[in-house]
Amino acid sequence: MKPKALLFDVFGTVVDWRSGIARDLAIHFQTHPSNTDPESVADAWRAEYQPSMEPVRSGRRGYVDLDTLHAENLVKLSKEFEFDLGDENQTNWLTKAWHRLPCWPDSVSGIERLKREFICASQSNGHLALAVNLAKYNGYSWDVILGSEVVRTYKPAPESYSRACSALQLKPAECMMVAAHNSDLQAAQNAGMQTAFVRRPTEHGPNQQQDLRATGQWSLEADSIIELADRLANL
Amino acid sequence: MKPKALLFDVFGTVVDWRSGIARDLAIHFQTHPSNTDPESVADAWRAEYQPSMEPVRSGRRGYVDLDTLHAENLVKLSKEFEFDLGDENQTNWLTKAWHRLPCWPDSVSGIERLKREFICASQSNGHLALAVNLAKYNGYSWDVILGSEVVRTYKPAPESYSRACSALQLKPAECMMVAAHNSDLQAAQNAGMQTAFVRRPTEHGPNQQQDLRATGQWSLEADSIIELADRLANL
Repeated sequence: MKPKALLFDVFGTVVDWRSGIARDLAIHFQTHPSNTDPESVADAWRAEYQPSMEPVRSGRRGYVDLDTLHAENLVKLSKEFEFDLGDENQTNWLTKAWHRLPCWPDSVSGIERLKREFICASQSNGHLALAVNLAKYNGYSWDVILGSEVVRTYKPAPESYSRACSALQLKPAECMMVAAHNSDLQAAQNAGMQTAFVRRPTEHGPNQQQDLRATGQWSLEADSIIELADRLANL
Repeated sequence: MKPKALLFDVFGTVVDWRSGIARDLAIHFQTHPSNTDPESVADAWRAEYQPSMEPVRSGRRGYVDLDTLHAENLVKLSKEFEFDLGDENQTNWLTKAWHRLPCWPDSVSGIERLKREFICASQSNGHLALAVNLAKYNGYSWDVILGSEVVRTYKPAPESYSRACSALQLKPAECMMVAAHNSDLQAAQNAGMQTAFVRRPTEHGPNQQQDLRATGQWSLEADSIIELADRLANL
């Protein structure tokens, strides 16, 4: 059965967070020097991401948006890697690097093509402003932005997926989760959704070890969002 | 100052609810006859809209979506105008007529053109599924769907406007409300937003009496969304 809606993970699946974050860290280091390379700080910043969401997922902490978590994690990194954050404006600019991440080359044309046949939704842990800023920065638009601010928790909490499908007035089986991460797809499948794995073998840089291949029985696999569109057209 | 985001009213401003509702009522009356013309029932259905939201705005009733209110109001109309609603599927189909409303002729090209320069958001009393279905039905997409389901109340409650701007991480003065209704613009202006009045002199049919002209000091006035794009380009 063809899905009616495609729900997209964004960080890593649609946008290349590592090169975008490293780019803006390199700019920051020009005026606030560091002995560390930007890629290592980008990897460390991303590594703080999952643990920092856990108190929200478990309910120990009320919902806060990703800007708040990214800002808190950035303070930790500045101590660990011994660099100065600069004044408040500079710190905010650096925190908002997550709003300025470049797409993978196939993302914009793939999404715009898929929108002709399917409801294409952002189903990211980013909040509405972050998701819309990422889209405007790259020149695409979602049909609807779901994700953490709508469902009031973070993936891979089960309610994250079920509430997203409900918001579209669709059953989970009518929706397909699209992600470069097996863990995201497993949680979506557990919630009854269809699943599509898009390989992003350099998301974590040239020595990536994780998510190089599908580790579950997903509905579809593809090497790009354009290839995903081809596969969905042939269903 | 040019706005960064345009927040659009939808029913009447972007879509022509009256002819869309009358069209689907006419189809319904073919199998469930009525002595009333579809336009009169469409007008009566719309007339129930504002009073039915009031308990939610005042806090006497928790948030329910427009499908719920439209369904309740449809039952009232079927008694008043003495027509049969048919079975549950047929009743649901008729209630969902509000998801299948045609755009005014200038809406799609106007919105897609404005999206090149501005964040274009749906700021309607419709919920997410309704807003996305209206967009897909007509072939346009919003940058982000705000509105009742995000702000958890109905316009013209003041929080409806302030929460919508906050969701974009923008100040109200950086956002422009676009509407065919003076009352909507007055509430948006009270919340600190810029305002654009788009004249829709046949929203209520050929004998429309209300909102034929601007009754407040709005930032801009236009006869179509395309003309609005021209005026914003010249600011």
